[in-house]
Amino acid sequence: MAPPPHGEKSTKVKEESAAAVDNRPISTILFIIAMQTEALPLVNKFQLTEDVDSVFPKGVPWVRFYGNYKGLAINIVCPGKDPSLGVDAVGTVSASLVTYASIQALKPDLIINAGTAGGFGAKGASIGDVFLTSEVAFHDRRIPIPVFDIYGVGSRKAFSTPNLLKELNIKAGKLSTGDSLDMSPMDEASIVANDATIKDMEVTV
Amino acid sequence: MAPPPHGEKSTKVKEESAAAVDNRPISTILFIIAMQTEALPLVNKFQLTEDVDSVFPKGVPWVRFYGNYKGLAINIVCPGKDPSLGVDAVGTVSASLVTYASIQALKPDLIINAGTAGGFGAKGASIGDVFLTSEVAFHDRRIPIPVFDIYGVGSRKAFSTPNLLKELNIKAGKLSTGDSLDMSPMDEASIVANDATIKDMEVTV
Repeated sequence: MAPPPHGEKSTKVKEESAAAVDNRPISTILFIIAMQTEALPLVNKFQLTEDVDSVFPKGVPWVRFYGNYKGLAINIVCPGKDPSLGVDAVGTVSASLVTYASIQALKPDLIINAGTAGGFGAKGASIGDVFLTSEVAFHDRRIPIPVFDIYGVGSRKAFSTPNLLKELNIKAGKLSTGDSLDMSPMDEASIVANDATIKDMEVTV
Repeated sequence: MAPPPHGEKSTKVKEESAAAVDNRPISTILFIIAMQTEALPLVNKFQLTEDVDSVFPKGVPWVRFYGNYKGLAINIVCPGKDPSLGVDAVGTVSASLVTYASIQALKPDLIINAGTAGGFGAKGASIGDVFLTSEVAFHDRRIPIPVFDIYGVGSRKAFSTPNLLKELNIKAGKLSTGDSLDMSPMDEASIVANDATIKDMEVTV
């Protein structure tokens, strides 16, 4: 979740992979999607079923949809609703927890963090664009101590997918994540330093 | 981890509890401490042993120290070092993950999030003070949409410990957490809105 910082709206598709180093075949795919309304089109497209007998511990609000699509085991996991407030549990903390628990429970070969994001017009993003994220960083963790500063930004490359990019003919760009929907001047400076085209709220770095 | 925002340095002791509602007896205690150097005095005090055959999944940097103290099963868990950079994995994301995984693995009756924190002199904090946190909130997750705004701040009360507070004769105060060591004007406004005496970097809300 992250509406437009500059009046633009794009869709991000970020890929990470446990298979990046060992090139093992991909058979189980995990989508992490922050809001259930963002997930719905994919749930319908893949004709997925909601998991009622959850693979997750009792009491967590996390929601999993699963099914088979062209021989691939597809899972879409959302953090679900805050139990007391009823709104989607957006932000990096929920996204991290649900990603960690899903890795443990499902052992995915590929993780795709998908959803809507803000895009910067000045960096070439337009409303409705679909982006494949090349690199991610965190703009909320400023620790001005040597080495901790690098840890704080947490920049890392996404799983390289040159064929997918070419085949789908979509844009590629760097993504910067934080926990806020708005953008303070300090955030903006960090996002610029991260050379980001896309601003999101739920990428785990 | 969170050195002084205004030249003050205090120690925070925040208590949460799975036992808050059911009043079950407390026999297993989990301390979450962000930096190993912060944990060391307690590890020594309780004469704890490092868990080499980890209760956590293979590959995570999380470190657990355990032992028995006056009939209580004591666990101190630290997020450990970032594998590529070698610095302590500070911040709310690591703290959340390690807290979640520790709850699953250890089923604690009481969780104590302890460590150094910044204190605001204007709110009555002095260098060397020990605080027991009464309430926590997050100042990094600004979502100016009705209900999401309340979710974003994530304010919640800590486990009430009036006897402990009286017995130890320490101070009580509200804590605001974020991911940055510094404090932007926007952060400061949120911290003031959270009525915080203490500023930290690893409380999970």
